[in-house]
Amino acid sequence: MDKNKYANTVISTRVRLARNINNLPFPRRLQGQEEIYSVLLKGVKESCDALYKNQYRFYQMDKIDDADSLSLVERHLISKNLQNSQYGAAFITEGEDISIMVNEEDHLRIQSIVKGFNLETAFNKAAEIDKELKNHLDIAYDEKLGYLTACPTNLGSAMRASVMMFLPALSMTNMIETVILRYQDEGITIRGIYGEGSKAEGYIYQISNQAAISLSEKEILKRVGNAVENLINAEEIARNNLKAARGIDLQNDIMISYGILKYCCKISSQEMMQDLALVKLGVNLGYLKLDMNKLNDMLVLSQPGMLCYISKQKLDARGRDIERAKFIKNYLE
Amino acid sequence: MDKNKYANTVISTRVRLARNINNLPFPRRLQGQEEIYSVLLKGVKESCDALYKNQYRFYQMDKIDDADSLSLVERHLISKNLQNSQYGAAFITEGEDISIMVNEEDHLRIQSIVKGFNLETAFNKAAEIDKELKNHLDIAYDEKLGYLTACPTNLGSAMRASVMMFLPALSMTNMIETVILRYQDEGITIRGIYGEGSKAEGYIYQISNQAAISLSEKEILKRVGNAVENLINAEEIARNNLKAARGIDLQNDIMISYGILKYCCKISSQEMMQDLALVKLGVNLGYLKLDMNKLNDMLVLSQPGMLCYISKQKLDARGRDIERAKFIKNYLE
Repeated sequence: MDKNKYANTVISTRVRLARNINNLPFPRRLQGQEEIYSVLLKGVKESCDALYKNQYRFYQMDKIDDADSLSLVERHLISKNLQNSQYGAAFITEGEDISIMVNEEDHLRIQSIVKGFNLETAFNKAAEIDKELKNHLDIAYDEKLGYLTACPTNLGSAMRASVMMFLPALSMTNMIETVILRYQDEGITIRGIYGEGSKAEGYIYQISNQAAISLSEKEILKRVGNAVENLINAEEIARNNLKAARGIDLQNDIMISYGILKYCCKISSQEMMQDLALVKLGVNLGYLKLDMNKLNDMLVLSQPGMLCYISKQKLDARGRDIERAKFIKNYLE
Repeated sequence: MDKNKYANTVISTRVRLARNINNLPFPRRLQGQEEIYSVLLKGVKESCDALYKNQYRFYQMDKIDDADSLSLVERHLISKNLQNSQYGAAFITEGEDISIMVNEEDHLRIQSIVKGFNLETAFNKAAEIDKELKNHLDIAYDEKLGYLTACPTNLGSAMRASVMMFLPALSMTNMIETVILRYQDEGITIRGIYGEGSKAEGYIYQISNQAAISLSEKEILKRVGNAVENLINAEEIARNNLKAARGIDLQNDIMISYGILKYCCKISSQEMMQDLALVKLGVNLGYLKLDMNKLNDMLVLSQPGMLCYISKQKLDARGRDIERAKFIKNYLE
């Protein structure tokens, strides 16, 4: 399988580890116990200092601006859950490849993100900080059960490996429904990352293991990796079929989407995602020559919170639609 | 009134004169009388030779290709009536500023077309060939009734002066309906030139005198001229109001239409006219910098018959939509 095939389909790879501290109540039972919060922050800070020197940022959810925290959600650096929690905090490396959430569902959630399809690198980066954290905090681990977690489905390796994929052809041809059901039986979850419907906005899907229990880290990486490889092939075939079946009609839709992105004066997030998805497909099919990474970045950067963050303005929906159009125009030029 | 104002609103000016020959039956009574047809052709040919040397073309409707004759209709050089008539013929100057139809409703219909708003030039050019024709044919004229014509409403000067106008703002704001009714009372007809509905495709309207009877040439030119001047002002005001009321929404529609024209891979005639109309409005409102004459030409050149004529291919509807998109792309570059 050539490298381009990955680039056309896989956006990014993530590995998430859930960790908790011995003899401390789980976050949902934490109320007003600020000393516990301090213990956690201290331990994570020491670990980050040791590993990342001062190349990281620290955010406390009760002190951060709404637009700023939303922009972190949009970049998948924190969860919506964390954004709304009183004792939530996050340590994020400058390169935004590692994020450690404090007091999400578990005491700690380590997340490692790399561009493209690279489960091994993502895992190694997460394992590195995981190891360091053990030097500073008393991580709860049971010989039989593995890592202890707030939700029993995470017990064991407490790891989720997930790959963000661009699957326009499987989605347009409605084959994705069948694919989702098939992988469900194999312990793999496929879901849209923006929006909850089975048809993902922007044709972007997250492929991940369902449960960590009774599976080793190695086994999880292998299963998710295999599913992704198969999906890459299935999407490739579906794209060729789509191109053969719809030809100039598909090309026309793609080129009009490009024209709209290039010339619009206002555009909603949803419209943009749809147009951008078609443009990306156009690049894959050879109708357009554009930088795929740049297009993937655009998708994140033009989300509502990011727009306010970048433009340093408080914007209402209409204001954002106008700002988004300007941003896209600049980005495409 | 500055010159630009005209250019933003008036596309072209036409003057049409109806003429018949003494003691010959009107065309609808002409059946199998080929000698009459020969007399007409001979007279017009001699006149054209005298005035235009060999700078003109001659078409016989029973000999011309369907696509070619359709392309003449689309350029308003001949009527649909003439296209379908057995003994119909047309003499058209190389510059396509003069067309003489033989055996349309009348024996002869002289038509003069000039770009922009120029009733005087259009009239003078028509009058010049009219004068020459009198040297070669016995034109029917009655001291009391004026020129004799097949339809009594044309009696008298037998002249129709018409101006093709681009009235998007009056049309979008539905003010055009009121305007049409008001001018009807003043003997002025306003109608769409492509398609018959009151809402003209491409927001293009033809403003002309209703009847020639009892009005001198000078009077007709004055009345039509006044109506056009008033419409130019009304359209100008409506455009400013529209811009103020719809601002960025209107600009967005315009720019998206431009994006579609620039990037589409297939487009129907109707879609194209709508997009092109918005682009033209965009030029008028200062959102786009494009050559207005070129845009007006595009409108004619991308009509179905013209596309086949230019591309020298027999094309079905889908083929034309694809060819039209290519043509537009080249034209806009």
